[in-house]
Amino acid sequence: MLGLLWRAVFLLLLLVAPVAARAEGRLVDFEIASRRFDGNQAGVTAIRKAIAYLPDGYEAGRRRYPVVYFLPNLFDDQRAIFDRDGAKAVLDRAIAEGTVPPLILVSADFSTPAGSSFYATSPVTGDWTGFLAQDLVAAVDGRFRTLPRPDSRGLLGDRMGGYGAIRTAMLAPGVFGAVYALHPVGTGVGLQTMNSRPNFERLAAAKSLDDLGDDGFSRVFLGMYQAFLPHPGKPPFHVDFPASGRGASLATDPVLTARLQNAFLLDRLLPAHASELKALRGLMFDWGRFDGNADHVVANRAFAGLLEELGVANEAEEYRGWWGERHWTQGGRVETRALPFFGRALAYEEK
Amino acid sequence: MLGLLWRAVFLLLLLVAPVAARAEGRLVDFEIASRRFDGNQAGVTAIRKAIAYLPDGYEAGRRRYPVVYFLPNLFDDQRAIFDRDGAKAVLDRAIAEGTVPPLILVSADFSTPAGSSFYATSPVTGDWTGFLAQDLVAAVDGRFRTLPRPDSRGLLGDRMGGYGAIRTAMLAPGVFGAVYALHPVGTGVGLQTMNSRPNFERLAAAKSLDDLGDDGFSRVFLGMYQAFLPHPGKPPFHVDFPASGRGASLATDPVLTARLQNAFLLDRLLPAHASELKALRGLMFDWGRFDGNADHVVANRAFAGLLEELGVANEAEEYRGWWGERHWTQGGRVETRALPFFGRALAYEEK
Amino acid sequence: MLGLLWRAVFLLLLLVAPVAARAEGRLVDFEIASRRFDGNQAGVTAIRKAIAYLPDGYEAGRRRYPVVYFLPNLFDDQRAIFDRDGAKAVLDRAIAEGTVPPLILVSADFSTPAGSSFYATSPVTGDWTGFLAQDLVAAVDGRFRTLPRPDSRGLLGDRMGGYGAIRTAMLAPGVFGAVYALHPVGTGVGLQTMNSRPNFERLAAAKSLDDLGDDGFSRVFLGMYQAFLPHPGKPPFHVDFPASGRGASLATDPVLTARLQNAFLLDRLLPAHASELKALRGLMFDWGRFDGNADHVVANRAFAGLLEELGVANEAEEYRGWWGERHWTQGGRVETRALPFFGRALAYEEK
Amino acid sequence: MLGLLWRAVFLLLLLVAPVAARAEGRLVDFEIASRRFDGNQAGVTAIRKAIAYLPDGYEAGRRRYPVVYFLPNLFDDQRAIFDRDGAKAVLDRAIAEGTVPPLILVSADFSTPAGSSFYATSPVTGDWTGFLAQDLVAAVDGRFRTLPRPDSRGLLGDRMGGYGAIRTAMLAPGVFGAVYALHPVGTGVGLQTMNSRPNFERLAAAKSLDDLGDDGFSRVFLGMYQAFLPHPGKPPFHVDFPASGRGASLATDPVLTARLQNAFLLDRLLPAHASELKALRGLMFDWGRFDGNADHVVANRAFAGLLEELGVANEAEEYRGWWGERHWTQGGRVETRALPFFGRALAYEEK
Repeated sequence: MLGLLWRAVFLLLLLVAPVAARAEGRLVDFEIASRRFDGNQAGVTAIRKAIAYLPDGYEAGRRRYPVVYFLPNLFDDQRAIFDRDGAKAVLDRAIAEGTVPPLILVSADFSTPAGSSFYATSPVTGDWTGFLAQDLVAAVDGRFRTLPRPDSRGLLGDRMGGYGAIRTAMLAPGVFGAVYALHPVGTGVGLQTMNSRPNFERLAAAKSLDDLGDDGFSRVFLGMYQAFLPHPGKPPFHVDFPASGRGASLATDPVLTARLQNAFLLDRLLPAHASELKALRGLMFDWGRFDGNADHVVANRAFAGLLEELGVANEAEEYRGWWGERHWTQGGRVETRALPFFGRALAYEEK
Repeated sequence: MLGLLWRAVFLLLLLVAPVAARAEGRLVDFEIASRRFDGNQAGVTAIRKAIAYLPDGYEAGRRRYPVVYFLPNLFDDQRAIFDRDGAKAVLDRAIAEGTVPPLILVSADFSTPAGSSFYATSPVTGDWTGFLAQDLVAAVDGRFRTLPRPDSRGLLGDRMGGYGAIRTAMLAPGVFGAVYALHPVGTGVGLQTMNSRPNFERLAAAKSLDDLGDDGFSRVFLGMYQAFLPHPGKPPFHVDFPASGRGASLATDPVLTARLQNAFLLDRLLPAHASELKALRGLMFDWGRFDGNADHVVANRAFAGLLEELGVANEAEEYRGWWGERHWTQGGRVETRALPFFGRALAYEEK
Repeated sequence: MLGLLWRAVFLLLLLVAPVAARAEGRLVDFEIASRRFDGNQAGVTAIRKAIAYLPDGYEAGRRRYPVVYFLPNLFDDQRAIFDRDGAKAVLDRAIAEGTVPPLILVSADFSTPAGSSFYATSPVTGDWTGFLAQDLVAAVDGRFRTLPRPDSRGLLGDRMGGYGAIRTAMLAPGVFGAVYALHPVGTGVGLQTMNSRPNFERLAAAKSLDDLGDDGFSRVFLGMYQAFLPHPGKPPFHVDFPASGRGASLATDPVLTARLQNAFLLDRLLPAHASELKALRGLMFDWGRFDGNADHVVANRAFAGLLEELGVANEAEEYRGWWGERHWTQGGRVETRALPFFGRALAYEEK
Repeated sequence: MLGLLWRAVFLLLLLVAPVAARAEGRLVDFEIASRRFDGNQAGVTAIRKAIAYLPDGYEAGRRRYPVVYFLPNLFDDQRAIFDRDGAKAVLDRAIAEGTVPPLILVSADFSTPAGSSFYATSPVTGDWTGFLAQDLVAAVDGRFRTLPRPDSRGLLGDRMGGYGAIRTAMLAPGVFGAVYALHPVGTGVGLQTMNSRPNFERLAAAKSLDDLGDDGFSRVFLGMYQAFLPHPGKPPFHVDFPASGRGASLATDPVLTARLQNAFLLDRLLPAHASELKALRGLMFDWGRFDGNADHVVANRAFAGLLEELGVANEAEEYRGWWGERHWTQGGRVETRALPFFGRALAYEEK
């Protein structure tokens, strides 16, 4: 009933209020010092950036709010959704129209010099799982008027961040209560082999990141190897490569390739962690079927099947759209799916 | 703004009203005499049954309402969604909560003695397209306070009825303004061949429908042949069969099989009728990915691709669920997808 | 029995002969003047190049031989399989080892200035079907000691040429008796839409082929439009484009897109031409499952299903391999599949 | 060169020999007493039946031969391929025509009272891997003139037996040198979940195998649970069930389901055992794309991808055909693929 009341009241307020006075949230940049990256060999700094969206009324009131932690996509920093995608307007409107009750959204930087941390824990890149599930949560609960319990914490991730959201729910259980992954990657292998993507010759010859130029696949996979095939003390990148050569001369190391897949792919992690996902108040993910990389589509379909097989309640929706097309747009996935999901799945009341 | 107002007002009314007085619509059974079946050879009778859901307030007021025409699944009559699925409660609640503005829903009987009319026009089974798009619409506009124009008419079909909804929008353009197909069938061929499904030996030997017993596939396909491979004057079923034999001895007639597919499958009809679908105010369909008949899933994915290729705006959603599992349930597809869709896509005001 | 005898005799000859004297065929370049390109607007010249492989013993004997017509892939001319792929050695060895009885193989140039003729007939690019099925065959039968009848003529196509082989068997029936398509393209649409591939903005702005630079997809699709959406008298390319814009601004013309697909895609042509394929002595095609363009794989699987549905006897084999990887290699598809196929499917005796 | 000589000589012999004198092999039934089933709780007896095909010339000569071990499909005993499928004639012809050099083929019984042993090792059903890789091999090497080394031992399995062949090569390395799996099952999960197949209500209520009647899926899955979810001492079947209920009431145990999949599915076993498969002289498998259970097709495609990813050389061929249709037929998979494969992959000479 409370949900209905919120919606009704907000709708009426919206209708009677002058447009000029429409409620707006506020953005607050902040930083967190973390020891999770001590000794890392990838150039990750200890001071991590973050940004919080505080809903309209936050400052005037004393209420506590749930927090949705937003995990950015590869190559995006913590501000990209606000600076580029208009996320603040989406949140303002969704709260104003009662799509979701007022909440705090926190976005942090999960990038490494090579690209992405893959939201993983590695001796080369640091303990990103701990940073997210412990340090960041503690910092946010300490700084803002949050509802400081799992039932009121959500994870919302965008593509690579969607991967991070599901991964973190499996590997750091008991911290977050609901997960929404927008078009996650890394849920499984698709039609092409993983080892066919990077240029191993270029990777093997490179002396620094600059030598990779704008070879996107090689950069992404280097980040993956730093996360999942770390080899501390082996310059320049401190990784093992799961293969060498290219095309007809590709030579695969089956042991390293298997180790990479077992550590990286969510469908390999799931069998041992299904219970952690079952314990969530809500799990949802989606993907656009016209992603130019069909591997993502095929892998997400199969991952949805594996969740079903293991009895993990979830919503998994394939929609008309391509890679990231409709996440923060008006009427897009965040507004019509993710925020209503967090409206249903999180607890909004103090106990 | 009007949509917002409706939602707000209804939510408030809902909250202040005593539960005992919750608004309820009313069901009205009625019949239509149609000449569209004159001369049919399948035993279809001229008096067709239908049922209308009239929203709360219909009788006390003078307002006109949009109409959603519901097309039942195979083997369902016009009352099945009310008698078995609780459709009235779903509609009552959705209107009461502002999920959709008040509207009329009409369900009619599209079955034939063999099973389904396939919502098609055939010399053997009659002109079901004309019955739906002309006779039924005229009867409803004549009998109820409707908004008698395409912008205010929707088609909502369930599986075989979803097929009928898309088919009718293509073949009888200009009558309906928005289409929602729940888990449609017949959008294309899937993984198995169509001719591998029915028992042609049993069909060829049968003297009457009773001889088919409970062989569901053979019955369904007989209805398909009456619709799309009619052969009037050829007893007992007045059809041609596109193949004979079974398994290793299956002998396919390529001309009849091609004719059947061209007449039946929506992906074969679409290239010549894409413009009719583009002219709609809204087109949406969905399917559950765990349908035990994977052909439906594969075909719907491909049909979504073909719509995209031809530039037909649409929403096509694949969700966690199996064959018909979540259509009329609480929080199911009708309540959370189809009715909000008709809330957006239909016109609710008199011009 | 004759086949067995050939194999036995050749194997023994092979074993007793000194290696230095191993039998070799001979390559003969020749040209054909054709009127099929009169009035074309794509710069196609009337003198067409071809090359014939004549088996060892051709010159010393009086025997007549079957002819396999080889249709090259996109961007390959008639000599590419000999100059680059070592086709002569493959043929020499296959005949010497009795993999296939001696035969003539003829390869011709099917390229246009834009890229490929798509083996089609168009007012812009000329009548390539007629050139192949009538002019080339007549020239070969006139110049060489062939078995001049359909039972002794095969079509072997490589990728785009595989497309051409199946297309020609459908549209020029009664000329060729057996078809083998190596990894054909254009059998249907795959996962991505066709209109997402070319750069319509660049195509629309281009004043000449040079303006397309090395944009391979745009060049390929321009050739497709010249073949299937010709618009004679509309410079510079004499085509209609089925869409304009790009990405989010892509605007599709559903009528032109449907026309293109109906004219181009083999699965659209098949229903009306299944009987022509059924009349063949043999039909086989194959593809490697790791083609980097998964659309080809998906489309070939579906095409195999449609052939099955329509009762067209065929062999369709998906193998471990990628785009063109194993066609002319030792132990590759030509040697282990295509040539034995023609050994079974063609007639090698004079009547 | 030796291969060529064999083929030539046999072809010539074949041509000069009177048909009535065509060479024939001989079948020898025999039994093996094994301790691998001591203490099993599934009613498996210690005396196991087997049958050997000895090639023509075996008795008159002193030569040693390679051995192909044939693993039967579910519900087939060791004689089924001879009594039902005409395997002897296929072997006679293939050897006579030089398709494969002379070899011994041994087929044994791998069934249990519930159905199949799944070629696995379990406290409930016994150590079938040890029986095959050690006891049976030792018995055959002791009884017949074999080439008693891995290079001269092949595994040929049919469907469930194809599963067994790949499984055994992974789990009992160093015994067999080449593996051919005809249409294997259990390579991975397909489109439907495994837990949707058996009737858990019926399984839970059953007091004996008879209570399962002709419910094929439930019987097959019971055998699977005896192999992979054994619970010795828990009557009547000595298994755990990974789920209970049915349809909407299905309740999945994620831990048991994960355990089952990890123990059963070849794609779960492969990452840790890829090196064992890489060490083979040859690995090939195939499947017909029209298998009525599309899960097998989807799983085999994905398994082929995983082998590629891990760098395991293999041939994996998808062909036109359905479930088991063309295994032992003339021109079928055994004759045209499996036997030539063993001709290439096994060693036929004494060292």
